[in-house]
Amino acid sequence: MTAAAKGRDAAQISAVDTSLWVRLLGCHNLMLGELRKSFEGEVTMARFDLIANLDREDGLTLAELSRRMLVTAGNLTGLVDRSERDGVVVRKSDAGDKRLVRVWLTPEGQRLARELIPAHAARISKLLSPLAADERRDLRRLLGKLRSSLAEGHEKT
Amino acid sequence: MTAAAKGRDAAQISAVDTSLWVRLLGCHNLMLGELRKSFEGEVTMARFDLIANLDREDGLTLAELSRRMLVTAGNLTGLVDRSERDGVVVRKSDAGDKRLVRVWLTPEGQRLARELIPAHAARISKLLSPLAADERRDLRRLLGKLRSSLAEGHEKT
Repeated sequence: MTAAAKGRDAAQISAVDTSLWVRLLGCHNLMLGELRKSFEGEVTMARFDLIANLDREDGLTLAELSRRMLVTAGNLTGLVDRSERDGVVVRKSDAGDKRLVRVWLTPEGQRLARELIPAHAARISKLLSPLAADERRDLRRLLGKLRSSLAEGHEKT
Repeated sequence: MTAAAKGRDAAQISAVDTSLWVRLLGCHNLMLGELRKSFEGEVTMARFDLIANLDREDGLTLAELSRRMLVTAGNLTGLVDRSERDGVVVRKSDAGDKRLVRVWLTPEGQRLARELIPAHAARISKLLSPLAADERRDLRRLLGKLRSSLAEGHEKT
């Protein structure tokens, strides 16, 4: 392969990668816009994300939540403060290690989780429905592989 | 299939879909975080996106830019105002239809495009490099199909 051909080849690969990223951005923005609309008047997307994470595993520490939700400690503190004020979550010290603060859903938070999570899942399924089941499986697998590698790189820096 | 089995089946599909969305969110947030870091001190991501869109096709109207960049007309006006003030773009009336305003890169904008776009593309390729070439092709194709269907649904509402 000549140097020029190699150059064209590299440019070709790079154009495919950029296009992949532009498409990922587009899917993210369009889906987030639709999902945000559906929550209007109920909870913010950030609060929903907090509730959904605690519904998956209640009693997480702030550090654990920050890692899972990909938000900074500062933003998370404000979010937990407001959610606690509104009676959705409550902070409690860990029974074994008093220095460790864990966040729990209140009964009202559990009620919101039972109401909002299935509706949210149904909306996601509707938005993804133009893809066939095997396409969704492939897409999920590829995004999982990419996310794992990005998360590893992220922790190294 | 019993009703209970159908229920389990639907729940299974829904869990895969939700997980797909959570992974897409994660890939988006982690990649955006890395790419944003790399622009620090040069331009904002929003301004880079404006420059990159005009580099692809110069002289777009505000309506066309708003559609391609998936930003509201209000946010776009502020972005173009600031970019024009800093000498990166310039607004000009369309030669044929004076009511139509088009946005063009200035020589400084073109210089920024030549400097930033290849560096941005190289960073994207590096972030995607853990995926094999055929995986990137598949991922790009699936995201393209999803984005098209989402954009159609979006225009209908």
